[in-house]
Amino acid sequence: MNNEDEIDIEKAAEFLGLPPSRLSELLKKRTIVRNWGEYEDIFRFDNHISGIETGSVFIKKGNDFEMIRGFPKIKRAMTLFPAIERNFPDIGSVLVEEKMNGYNVRVTGHKGELITLTRSGHVCPYSTERAQHLLNHDFFTENPDLVIYGEMVGPDNPYVPKDIYGVKSLDLFVFDIRSKFDGAPLPVIERRELASDYGFSQVELFGEFGIEEAPSKITRIIRELGKKEHEGVIIKDPEMVLQPIKYTCSESNCADLRHAFRFYNDSGRDYMFPRIVREGFQSAEWNENEEELRKRCLRLGESILRPMIRSIREVQRDERISDDVRIRVRNRDTIDRFRAYLERLGVDVIFGPPEKIGEDYLVRISKLNKSTTDKTKSIVEGQLWS
Amino acid sequence: MNNEDEIDIEKAAEFLGLPPSRLSELLKKRTIVRNWGEYEDIFRFDNHISGIETGSVFIKKGNDFEMIRGFPKIKRAMTLFPAIERNFPDIGSVLVEEKMNGYNVRVTGHKGELITLTRSGHVCPYSTERAQHLLNHDFFTENPDLVIYGEMVGPDNPYVPKDIYGVKSLDLFVFDIRSKFDGAPLPVIERRELASDYGFSQVELFGEFGIEEAPSKITRIIRELGKKEHEGVIIKDPEMVLQPIKYTCSESNCADLRHAFRFYNDSGRDYMFPRIVREGFQSAEWNENEEELRKRCLRLGESILRPMIRSIREVQRDERISDDVRIRVRNRDTIDRFRAYLERLGVDVIFGPPEKIGEDYLVRISKLNKSTTDKTKSIVEGQLWS
Repeated sequence: MNNEDEIDIEKAAEFLGLPPSRLSELLKKRTIVRNWGEYEDIFRFDNHISGIETGSVFIKKGNDFEMIRGFPKIKRAMTLFPAIERNFPDIGSVLVEEKMNGYNVRVTGHKGELITLTRSGHVCPYSTERAQHLLNHDFFTENPDLVIYGEMVGPDNPYVPKDIYGVKSLDLFVFDIRSKFDGAPLPVIERRELASDYGFSQVELFGEFGIEEAPSKITRIIRELGKKEHEGVIIKDPEMVLQPIKYTCSESNCADLRHAFRFYNDSGRDYMFPRIVREGFQSAEWNENEEELRKRCLRLGESILRPMIRSIREVQRDERISDDVRIRVRNRDTIDRFRAYLERLGVDVIFGPPEKIGEDYLVRISKLNKSTTDKTKSIVEGQLWS
Repeated sequence: MNNEDEIDIEKAAEFLGLPPSRLSELLKKRTIVRNWGEYEDIFRFDNHISGIETGSVFIKKGNDFEMIRGFPKIKRAMTLFPAIERNFPDIGSVLVEEKMNGYNVRVTGHKGELITLTRSGHVCPYSTERAQHLLNHDFFTENPDLVIYGEMVGPDNPYVPKDIYGVKSLDLFVFDIRSKFDGAPLPVIERRELASDYGFSQVELFGEFGIEEAPSKITRIIRELGKKEHEGVIIKDPEMVLQPIKYTCSESNCADLRHAFRFYNDSGRDYMFPRIVREGFQSAEWNENEEELRKRCLRLGESILRPMIRSIREVQRDERISDDVRIRVRNRDTIDRFRAYLERLGVDVIFGPPEKIGEDYLVRISKLNKSTTDKTKSIVEGQLWS
């Protein structure tokens, strides 16, 4: 099957504002990639093209099209002062919301159902089933031009499981509502009210702070969040005209590093390096005394070495290093669909047997980290590091 | 001037065992690069080509040529057991010599003088002047087919200054003697005797150990070297037929990291990452208890954060981050020639005024780390990390 035959290139190109020849080329080069199976009418941008973010999707709807924009990358403040002042000029105050540690999804109505797109623009069968149960469908019929942007959080999470939020299984916390096509966001308070009207869970709003006081206020919030190993905050222009910025806790950063170094040969160096560098800037901004700095150094060192050593020990015991997660589904079919989905994406997984728990099935999944297992095995067998 | 015009391509190609068209192409692509100025007759391999290491040089000598092979990369044992057993099969014992922390040079006779090549195959004017004073020239006239491979070590060192060896200024410690052209090494004891005959300083020989006992013996040596922050050892087949392997101390590794994180945006991520990973394997092999592991974690964390914070503070005080080194020369001309050399290599340097000390001139050199200075400055001014 040739992808190009199936859609009207002229019409699609016109919708995207591209010359038809350019669209054909993007499809051919797989910069725009068509989904498979039941979501064949969805095309995702595997890379950004002029003005359209990676992860954006466009959907063929009969003879028409619909665009769902990718979630824009939020830049990071390495120090709060003077980053807030500099990045929010000419507005009096900022709103501060929690940045939760889960995975980023977009939920939209599709053929009378809900579908959930991952950050990269795939339709995740597990997240889709969960969103069907978690969100009030009326929102999507009553607001057909809006898309829900949220964080999937909790322990029954195949990507970023966390027990720190008091979520029993998995919940979706809304942090953005945006228009289809151009991705324009609702102002923060308007968005919160709308989400509240439909009973959606939302990320916490910590308050509105004047630009001058914001760095010290946020530092206090970050210290409290850090104690609970929560991730951090997003600092927002109330009108959502200026770009939000993020700032995070050392404890959560170190938790990321712990995860990364457990799979040290799978996690990219480009993932680890900025997480290490952040610690230095936060310590410098906080003017840490000798004891605080020592504690931070120890925390960083332990986040790196302990998980690595655990992995080495596992390989010495002839075990395979894996990331063990779990999902909880209502519909047994979702298990097979999710497995097929992960395999299609090239993730090496072992699914345990479903356990019936109330109305749900709990399934344990081992994601095998082959690269780290193999590298570690070769080293403990005496192979040299070239 | 066209490089190719100046040498007889046919003859040079025959010497190198390459088709003439291939040599022309390598010169054109600058895989083989001609030196400038007084060493125009020297060509270095900027990249390896079949069987010839990066850093190898060939030298036009009248109508003839001479080859000086690059120093082969020595692979690293991440754990001593079973790496030694596996990499030295079928020989009863290994010789263990110190791996000193300085910079790697090759010294050869050239037009009745000595020249010193850096690892990459450049002729370093400072190292050349130093070698002229440090080495007995008779070696080179009496052994015209041999090349000295050694480590330049000490505080008056523009690349890797170290005070840990009790060297007053700079000394050259021989660790290898190899034939020109094919780079074949002398057996260890024969090499040590020959170096001794000419009064050369040499790296320390710790002893000969049976394959079975070597891991525990070397572990003991490494623990002692670590206390002095010495770098580590090279484990060698006495006959130098099998490839040597290296193994290093955590303390020296952490010293490297301290240097790297001071210039965190200049030092490559690929430099830092394996140095971090080594710590995990050594701790696992040494079966460290809770207190030893904690100490190692703290040492690692401090090696990362303290130098970064120092750099951030310097930038906050509007200073430029620099690596401050010094050289000590006999001939005042060497100062200008070394400065021109560094500038030609693109190093951003500030030379202090020469101070006369006995017969020598001492010159302080600041190597500016522009990338780290600029990155840090932009962050402390509130720019976001994208």
